[in-house]
Amino acid sequence: MSGSMLLRSVRLTNGETVDIAIRDGRIAAIGPDLPGEPVIEGKGRLALPALVEAHGHFDKTLWGTGWPTNSAGPTLRDYIANERRILRDVKTPIADRAGKLIEQCIAKGSLHFRCHVDVDPEFGTTHVAEMLALREKYRGIISMDFVVFPQTGLLIRPGTAEIMEAALEMGVENVGGLDPCGIDLDPIRHLETVFGLAGTYDRGVDIHLHDKGELGLWQIERIAEFTRRFERQGRTVISHAYCLGQASEARLMKIAAELAETGISIMTTAPADCPAPPVAALRAAGVNVCMGSDGIRDAWSPLGTGDMLERALFLALRFDWAKDHELADAFDCVTQSGAKALGLEDYGIGVGKPANLVLIEAENVGMAIAERRADRTVIASGRVVAEGGVYLG
Amino acid sequence: MSGSMLLRSVRLTNGETVDIAIRDGRIAAIGPDLPGEPVIEGKGRLALPALVEAHGHFDKTLWGTGWPTNSAGPTLRDYIANERRILRDVKTPIADRAGKLIEQCIAKGSLHFRCHVDVDPEFGTTHVAEMLALREKYRGIISMDFVVFPQTGLLIRPGTAEIMEAALEMGVENVGGLDPCGIDLDPIRHLETVFGLAGTYDRGVDIHLHDKGELGLWQIERIAEFTRRFERQGRTVISHAYCLGQASEARLMKIAAELAETGISIMTTAPADCPAPPVAALRAAGVNVCMGSDGIRDAWSPLGTGDMLERALFLALRFDWAKDHELADAFDCVTQSGAKALGLEDYGIGVGKPANLVLIEAENVGMAIAERRADRTVIASGRVVAEGGVYLG
Repeated sequence: MSGSMLLRSVRLTNGETVDIAIRDGRIAAIGPDLPGEPVIEGKGRLALPALVEAHGHFDKTLWGTGWPTNSAGPTLRDYIANERRILRDVKTPIADRAGKLIEQCIAKGSLHFRCHVDVDPEFGTTHVAEMLALREKYRGIISMDFVVFPQTGLLIRPGTAEIMEAALEMGVENVGGLDPCGIDLDPIRHLETVFGLAGTYDRGVDIHLHDKGELGLWQIERIAEFTRRFERQGRTVISHAYCLGQASEARLMKIAAELAETGISIMTTAPADCPAPPVAALRAAGVNVCMGSDGIRDAWSPLGTGDMLERALFLALRFDWAKDHELADAFDCVTQSGAKALGLEDYGIGVGKPANLVLIEAENVGMAIAERRADRTVIASGRVVAEGGVYLG
Repeated sequence: MSGSMLLRSVRLTNGETVDIAIRDGRIAAIGPDLPGEPVIEGKGRLALPALVEAHGHFDKTLWGTGWPTNSAGPTLRDYIANERRILRDVKTPIADRAGKLIEQCIAKGSLHFRCHVDVDPEFGTTHVAEMLALREKYRGIISMDFVVFPQTGLLIRPGTAEIMEAALEMGVENVGGLDPCGIDLDPIRHLETVFGLAGTYDRGVDIHLHDKGELGLWQIERIAEFTRRFERQGRTVISHAYCLGQASEARLMKIAAELAETGISIMTTAPADCPAPPVAALRAAGVNVCMGSDGIRDAWSPLGTGDMLERALFLALRFDWAKDHELADAFDCVTQSGAKALGLEDYGIGVGKPANLVLIEAENVGMAIAERRADRTVIASGRVVAEGGVYLG
């Protein structure tokens, strides 16, 4: 049973009905009438590659602790203070909250994750330590990389850079940043710190950029320069980047060309309430666009389910995508493009690759996104780890 | 069994746990430890009033006929021509397509509907006749009123007004209109025709208004004038009204006051891809705002599920609503406000009212919207008509 099985009669996203033979956690063969056991009957369900959650904040979720009524004041400062108070008071440890949410995400079909983990002079690297330990629990089922995230600011919170460095020493794979202008108030020194750490420790970079308009666009140009200067090409992600949705076409095309050339990925939640990166135009210009849930049931918002097919739906709705090729693009953003942003090797359904799959009843990926059936079979390294929305472990 | 039962241990939206005794299809008592049979165990699930779908196009759905790949050309004209071709060619009758979709909506908890039904010089009132017949099939389970809808234009398609009049003679409850400026090119004559018919036949009015910016706002002012002139106060709905999302605050407040005074309801889908009526500001000004799915899996888009809790989620996401009172407002838009727009009497959970309820596992309406569990028990006139996402009839 250790990672070997035969998936009988599943449909690939190209429409072909096949068997998939899995041996020792990897796909051994794809084709008609294959031998193998135990047999899992696919019943013609669609076989999708495991979904990719490219932007989560698992350390801060309140999942599994009851409904988190949001009582923050109106300003960003209120929200940050409110979160600090809530996370100080919550009795349930990160391992339980984040663990339950990870299991929820697995049940929805995500097996690859990027998690931003808060550091702060108040609590140092404790979130990092807890998330590192939690990751071990799910080894062999999911992949999850971390971004050390200065949620309350970097330069404006003295001591934070040192804590971030400590997190990198502990094994965190990426250096995070946060609105070099809007929050940290000194963009060049902010980027020098972030990329300096990434260069020294040879890590990736993932920067939260909420700053709007020209202020945001100017920072994207700076991030691209730093990406070149510190040789982080293909290893830098800009998360949110709302400002790209406010650029003129001419300006957008210049920036997109630079993002494509430096291999900088854009992460979007496809927000409905504010400008969003124009995903079709960016993709057409060769920019890699991935998706994430952002916070799920936390002090910022009680909403979110961790279902990346739902996230793909939000993308389709955000840009009025209705054609099959558009829905396939939305699907790509929560699968292949997510894998690319996270630097995953061996991703996808193919012989020799790890057997990380989701089976779902749908005629095609468009229908999978439209209906988002709860009844999914999730297979990680050739083992069924979730069935019918329930995590089996 | 005919409409009598005891719902044991359900929670009301105010948090109170009660029994609900149902006799002859109506709620006979609400309180602790009530007698009655047969007993349906509520298990502490939330009891919600039946959801209200205030804007559907059931006659045009392709639900149940396989995945409808969208192959329309880029322009609005292309889409309309494409739809005409598809609906001419589809072999499955309206009764089957619309019927299956109605059953899907019932399984999600909607029991009250408004359906816009196309008329056109090409096919006359055939859609109307088929929908009138179909409505009979679900009598006793749902309420559904109709709007005769000139999808391809009214004045620009000579003969359409006469067909609309024929539809009213057949029993359609409301007169529809469509972009008096943008599509029909003669706003005053358009409104004279629509409101003239509504006045003559004493019917309601429901106008699709997609026109943007000042053009749209000007038409809303005209619609309010016609509402007064033809005494349609409280019986007029403006659907979509994207332009309200583009008005300056001063302009919006003047228009909102007039909408509130004339009892004109605004219907929104909470679109993510374009301006949307500012729901919080409108509600604060006393304007009734209801919600609809618009087209579900049709020639316009293959998306849509008919789940009005999902629609409430879209509203919350559209305006970054995260607080309990905001989620309660979103819930109100798919329940009480929908009922008000449709002029439903006796709506809601209360003694003496029809027993139209949805039981769903959730701590409160916010959680119901956030999670949208598939496992719902739907009760119509005191009978279980859907369970676990399956329509029972």
